[in-house]
Amino acid sequence: MDPFMQAAIEEARLGLAEGGIPIGSVIVHKGRIIGRGHNRRVQEGSAIKHGEMDAFENAGRQPASVYREAVLYTTLSPCAMCSGAILLYGIPKVVIGENRTFLGEEALLRSRGVELEVRDDAECVRLMEDFIAARPELWNEDIGE
Amino acid sequence: MDPFMQAAIEEARLGLAEGGIPIGSVIVHKGRIIGRGHNRRVQEGSAIKHGEMDAFENAGRQPASVYREAVLYTTLSPCAMCSGAILLYGIPKVVIGENRTFLGEEALLRSRGVELEVRDDAECVRLMEDFIAARPELWNEDIGE
Repeated sequence: MDPFMQAAIEEARLGLAEGGIPIGSVIVHKGRIIGRGHNRRVQEGSAIKHGEMDAFENAGRQPASVYREAVLYTTLSPCAMCSGAILLYGIPKVVIGENRTFLGEEALLRSRGVELEVRDDAECVRLMEDFIAARPELWNEDIGE
Repeated sequence: MDPFMQAAIEEARLGLAEGGIPIGSVIVHKGRIIGRGHNRRVQEGSAIKHGEMDAFENAGRQPASVYREAVLYTTLSPCAMCSGAILLYGIPKVVIGENRTFLGEEALLRSRGVELEVRDDAECVRLMEDFIAARPELWNEDIGE
């Protein structure tokens, strides 16, 4: 298994263990994780810290040259907000655990030249299916529904 | 002057006084400010707290029904990330101080049915013109360039 997707899944599991929404993400530059994070809606009462946003925040202030060579891994197809952050910083490639349980703004990202790789990972699907079945109202809140 | 745009400008000035990037935002629901914020790149070393994102964060976890009736005020045309957050939460209307110094994702927002009102406010323009002239490298970092 890809160690970077594995790290994103570990972040998702960590979030679940904290009572949160199990979505994780890492940002990789030149083969090294420079930022990692998970959804913190429950833990911090945050409306903006989706997994990908938390990874951007934890990567800290980076020069444009780093973002332009980075790959973002996320366990779930990125929503409009996270896709917007990917476009703002010019991340050229996104590796997505799965898009069965939620299809984000993949068409928009592709139309702007972002390379997407969808893994259809069984563990990522299971984490979300179990969570959505257990806490549908919390999941709907997280996607603005 | 519209008190809500005035509040967004006050947030921008507050950010400037803190040594930060002068962009502010408020989110209004039924005539009341439910969240306000300003860019915190410098103050918190944040890559995700643009003015609009800070306002979303300070509004806290809100039900979809509140976002769907809210108006977001921002002193500057919203970038891809902030536009994505506006789309995620289904904000129906955005009032923009100015889009001369930076044109964000207005076309995308309009294409998704978001109503935009651009004020071309002289104070908003002046805040950004002065800031970009004084700190061009910091401004470029904030917009991923």
